[in-house]
Amino acid sequence: MNAPLDFYFDFSSPYGYLASHRIDALARRHGRRVRWRPILLGVVFRVTGQTPLTGQNLRGPYHERDFARSARRLGVAFTMPSTFPFPAQAASRGFYWLSERDAEASVAFAKTVYHAAFGEGQNVTDLDRLETIASSVGADRAEFRKALADPMMKDRLREETDSAIARGVFGSPFVFVDDEPFWGHDRFDQIDEWLQRGGW
Amino acid sequence: MNAPLDFYFDFSSPYGYLASHRIDALARRHGRRVRWRPILLGVVFRVTGQTPLTGQNLRGPYHERDFARSARRLGVAFTMPSTFPFPAQAASRGFYWLSERDAEASVAFAKTVYHAAFGEGQNVTDLDRLETIASSVGADRAEFRKALADPMMKDRLREETDSAIARGVFGSPFVFVDDEPFWGHDRFDQIDEWLQRGGW
Repeated sequence: MNAPLDFYFDFSSPYGYLASHRIDALARRHGRRVRWRPILLGVVFRVTGQTPLTGQNLRGPYHERDFARSARRLGVAFTMPSTFPFPAQAASRGFYWLSERDAEASVAFAKTVYHAAFGEGQNVTDLDRLETIASSVGADRAEFRKALADPMMKDRLREETDSAIARGVFGSPFVFVDDEPFWGHDRFDQIDEWLQRGGW
Repeated sequence: MNAPLDFYFDFSSPYGYLASHRIDALARRHGRRVRWRPILLGVVFRVTGQTPLTGQNLRGPYHERDFARSARRLGVAFTMPSTFPFPAQAASRGFYWLSERDAEASVAFAKTVYHAAFGEGQNVTDLDRLETIASSVGADRAEFRKALADPMMKDRLREETDSAIARGVFGSPFVFVDDEPFWGHDRFDQIDEWLQRGGW
């Protein structure tokens, strides 16, 4: 039984959104499962000294163009949310709460949150919107809403982010195939090749 | 007659080295030529606020691993030079001096400099080594040596770097297909696809 791929992402990451459309099928082709692991890039950036892409000279305009170009290539809807980057704490905590109850529902939740944020440009820091999405994948609204402020979920997200940093994660998406790290949506073809060839 | 691809690179860039093995064949497949254009990333970084990859927390170790992994995938020799990053002024000025006399010789010079630096880990800031490489592609040693300190060549390199920044170049390699920008060696398959499909 092969280990699942670890798929680290921030809900506020456009390339993470694009990757979310590919990671499950990619893993399935090679008989692997995926462990979806949202983290907070803002915490990671304090370690690397990086800042959000879109605020950077030269890099910002390139990447805004590239988000849309990469989405067109995949045939995926793309709209920048009006607030970007946005704090993804609530979505991430909600994800982990769901994942401890129903892994499949948590992945459906993640995909729907991502679609709302970058497919439709909606504000997914809005707790009512998150609650509606959670409800659409089968969660109890009141329990879900309570979980968003649950100290255990805060701890879980902090631990996930810290352990990602300890493994060397510095961006989103970031994938481990066993212990082999791949950063970036544009490495997904190489992940495919790595799984096919068993490395090189 | 289609416009040549603009291939911007810094001689001190490992991903530029990898790209130098692919760019000519990539262009040729689509009936294009390549304009090789060395620039100084140090100047670019003053605009973007970036710093050399290998000195960065988390990003440094990942990329050192990835340089070697990407080279293995291409079947290309790879050795980190003991001084990295290194100042590429002399190699770049020498390149432009050659390119004004014999474009083909200047590309052969660029490939040989890159191979010395990252294939063999040699120090290509050494002027005697550069002179020997220039001589191997047909240049007169004394004239080449004089060109390295020629104010016109200093100006040429400065202008190339400034005009690259004005076009939005912020890394190495950086390729323009007509006016479409592509950053990074890991986008070369997309450049191929872009040329094939005429964009998307």
